[in-house]
Amino acid sequence: MLKAGQICIELNGELSGNADQNVSSVSKIDMGAEDSLSFLSNPKYESFLENTKASVILVSKNQNIPTNTDKTFIKVDDPYNSFCIILGKYFNPKTHPSGIKTNTFVSENVVLPQEIYLGEFSYIGKNVKLGYNVKIYPNVYIGDNSEIGENTILFSGVNIYDDMKIGSNCIIHSGTVIGSDGFGFVRQNDGTYVKIPQIGNVVIENDVEIGANCTIDRATMGSTIIRQGVKLDNLIHIAHNVEIGKNSVIAGQTGISGSVRMDENCVVGGQVGFVGHIYIAKGTQIGAQSGIVKSITEPGQKWIGSPAIHLQDAFKSQVIYKKLPEIDKKINELEKKLNVKK
Amino acid sequence: MLKAGQICIELNGELSGNADQNVSSVSKIDMGAEDSLSFLSNPKYESFLENTKASVILVSKNQNIPTNTDKTFIKVDDPYNSFCIILGKYFNPKTHPSGIKTNTFVSENVVLPQEIYLGEFSYIGKNVKLGYNVKIYPNVYIGDNSEIGENTILFSGVNIYDDMKIGSNCIIHSGTVIGSDGFGFVRQNDGTYVKIPQIGNVVIENDVEIGANCTIDRATMGSTIIRQGVKLDNLIHIAHNVEIGKNSVIAGQTGISGSVRMDENCVVGGQVGFVGHIYIAKGTQIGAQSGIVKSITEPGQKWIGSPAIHLQDAFKSQVIYKKLPEIDKKINELEKKLNVKK
Amino acid sequence: MLKAGQICIELNGELSGNADQNVSSVSKIDMGAEDSLSFLSNPKYESFLENTKASVILVSKNQNIPTNTDKTFIKVDDPYNSFCIILGKYFNPKTHPSGIKTNTFVSENVVLPQEIYLGEFSYIGKNVKLGYNVKIYPNVYIGDNSEIGENTILFSGVNIYDDMKIGSNCIIHSGTVIGSDGFGFVRQNDGTYVKIPQIGNVVIENDVEIGANCTIDRATMGSTIIRQGVKLDNLIHIAHNVEIGKNSVIAGQTGISGSVRMDENCVVGGQVGFVGHIYIAKGTQIGAQSGIVKSITEPGQKWIGSPAIHLQDAFKSQVIYKKLPEIDKKINELEKKLNVKK
Repeated sequence: MLKAGQICIELNGELSGNADQNVSSVSKIDMGAEDSLSFLSNPKYESFLENTKASVILVSKNQNIPTNTDKTFIKVDDPYNSFCIILGKYFNPKTHPSGIKTNTFVSENVVLPQEIYLGEFSYIGKNVKLGYNVKIYPNVYIGDNSEIGENTILFSGVNIYDDMKIGSNCIIHSGTVIGSDGFGFVRQNDGTYVKIPQIGNVVIENDVEIGANCTIDRATMGSTIIRQGVKLDNLIHIAHNVEIGKNSVIAGQTGISGSVRMDENCVVGGQVGFVGHIYIAKGTQIGAQSGIVKSITEPGQKWIGSPAIHLQDAFKSQVIYKKLPEIDKKINELEKKLNVKK
Repeated sequence: MLKAGQICIELNGELSGNADQNVSSVSKIDMGAEDSLSFLSNPKYESFLENTKASVILVSKNQNIPTNTDKTFIKVDDPYNSFCIILGKYFNPKTHPSGIKTNTFVSENVVLPQEIYLGEFSYIGKNVKLGYNVKIYPNVYIGDNSEIGENTILFSGVNIYDDMKIGSNCIIHSGTVIGSDGFGFVRQNDGTYVKIPQIGNVVIENDVEIGANCTIDRATMGSTIIRQGVKLDNLIHIAHNVEIGKNSVIAGQTGISGSVRMDENCVVGGQVGFVGHIYIAKGTQIGAQSGIVKSITEPGQKWIGSPAIHLQDAFKSQVIYKKLPEIDKKINELEKKLNVKK
Repeated sequence: MLKAGQICIELNGELSGNADQNVSSVSKIDMGAEDSLSFLSNPKYESFLENTKASVILVSKNQNIPTNTDKTFIKVDDPYNSFCIILGKYFNPKTHPSGIKTNTFVSENVVLPQEIYLGEFSYIGKNVKLGYNVKIYPNVYIGDNSEIGENTILFSGVNIYDDMKIGSNCIIHSGTVIGSDGFGFVRQNDGTYVKIPQIGNVVIENDVEIGANCTIDRATMGSTIIRQGVKLDNLIHIAHNVEIGKNSVIAGQTGISGSVRMDENCVVGGQVGFVGHIYIAKGTQIGAQSGIVKSITEPGQKWIGSPAIHLQDAFKSQVIYKKLPEIDKKINELEKKLNVKK
């Protein structure tokens, strides 16, 4: 049985309370449960510190700890980060199935590793290469010539077109589509559109996680690229020939138009839209629902709004926006006054 | 054959015309068809009252009925509501298949009811409990330990991860994903992100309808909860640990960030975004494309805009927004005048 | 082997350089490759003209061609259009599989053409009619009574409900759902909602392309209609009873509410939202992230913003929006000055 004292040692923390306290589960501080480990990170929840049902609580080094309590507290630098370490190590119950199931279809010339999960009703195209310990849940489609790196997990209902390259240690959630055609047409004089063949692919590097029901289009030529360590939330649309830089993180329902090049370590909120063919500098942070209509060349800046402006300017304009009717009135009064004085 | 008179009795209406008029189909008033039942609800369509091809028309109690017509009219309190009652009772042709089909996969220790439809290429995980008269269309995936209540319909291509709880009389449309991981990562000093295990689940109560290609993430800990009677449109994103209150209705492409708690009877338009960790009071109404950036504590209010403000204020500011160039000009003129006078 | 001279003849262009130059691939001008064909369309890329690795470059008729180069140039009216013609004719490698695979399910009374691809784990409902040379990838679901016209391609994981009509030469990408129920409910006095039966269907005419993970709802009565030649990007939501006019083009993540009627040749940006029951005139162009809240009756106009205003007005207002804090300050100063003068 895991004990508070052991957790304290692993986290290099300071314990106050009972080092022998058992820890058999984890809980949120506002709910809690006996023998569970919890944490206080958001000050909003500080009031729960006294009456949480959790037995062991991770708190920050400068937190005032309640007295007259039978709880055990462990002071650490970053309670949430520390909590996640313990959560990942001891309480992550997910183990994935193993083996090639019977109701599957594997085409000719496929490289199958020794250790693999290939779930029911999944289809593997010709010349596909699957890395060691790949986990493919039921109802997955992988088109011809695609490659999936080792330890990568494809949850049920993922669709991967022909010629895609997906790295190692990736997680792709259900319903996500990799490699649909880029949206490219040439308008004819009679108003109809002719399709531009989309002959490129998608390259997803290692350690990428992609949420559910996302769509990542293949490049017209060359590759749409998702660099190492990128994390995408659900229902995100990545158009053809986009490149998302290393360790960038994008929240749900954001859409990125064709040929956008986003540099490393960007953080993008939900429901953001990017016009095509622009560059986003390293470390750019973009607020939810923004519209990015031109390149951002200065690294590490914060933007918000549609069209987006600098965060601090946006907040100022938002405040005045609410006062617009009042401003309009003031101006009319000023005009009257001035005219009267004429 | 259904007659106008019988419809009138069922709706407790007042008939004017031929009670023996046959009703063999339903139609929209602007199209109509002989022997069909239609209704007038939106005043925009009033002009169709005289020349609709429908034979029986439901109208409101204070509607002026055309004279010199062979149509039959039935006056009721709410024509659209009444129409839907008749539509649902007599003209809803949808019957769902029945039986366990051959090309399916059912894991060990599954509770199968006596009456069930389990469609081709669908996968049922270990320890799954399926209620009486559950309808599971083809290509559905249900992970281990999940439960589906009686009469619930899962259309083709639905993906339900492990450990989910779905109530009775629910409808989930094609491509929707229930239980993908919440979007939680901890940033490390080297710019990479470590995944926070998502060990919670999703609980969907009774009488919930969820549209196509939605995504509802499992909780980090505890449950993401969709309360009884909630109706979700298509392509909606519900993040981890969100709770949607009883009988709330949300339109398409709206996204709700982590740990939002929405109270009962809210009505949310399409493409709305909510930041995380906020509370939305009972009966709140939110206009399309709004951005909700802080808690709404007063019940029953109407909001719109990004960031959202009260509806009446928003309309006023929108009007002035269009006049901004004019306002700017006026101010410059005022400044000139004043300076001239100095 | 394809030669520059042959390409020049096909495009009716003017060649400058080596007519015998081999062309074995295509490339983007900023990357290039020996023996590859490229093009210069966007002036942004003009600097690559001198040092591209491509061997043959399509340029516009008035382009200054670098001297002292071993490249071959072909002058044409529209380099991108011309490039796409050659790309489609000689370099589109995609050939679709053929034949009815073994792990499929075909219900009774289905019309199967002589030439067809029916991929593994795909399900065809009763009375379905499939046209000549239909291509159905794995894990596709087609409900009872639906029709798919000749040469139409359904990629993996497409879900088509009962009673749908899809034309010829259409392409539908993975994960798209055609025919989910329209979002229609009638609120009851106790706060609950009663579902309105959705008994209509979806009609998709010829030459339509629909991206990945879109949702197109069936009509309440009658049909949701996508007219000939329409092109839809990914993650688009089309509600019940909408009609999209011939040759209209809609970018990703746009949502169209119920009963909107969009006329021919419209061009709609990404993440746009339309309220229900409005009309959009022929040739309307709408900028990304716009909110269309009322009918647009004048054809061929450009709109942007939420709520949308004319493009030229929007640009002006956007400029002033950024200056709002400054404007507010000016007004306060003007007021002070005037009051001092009193």
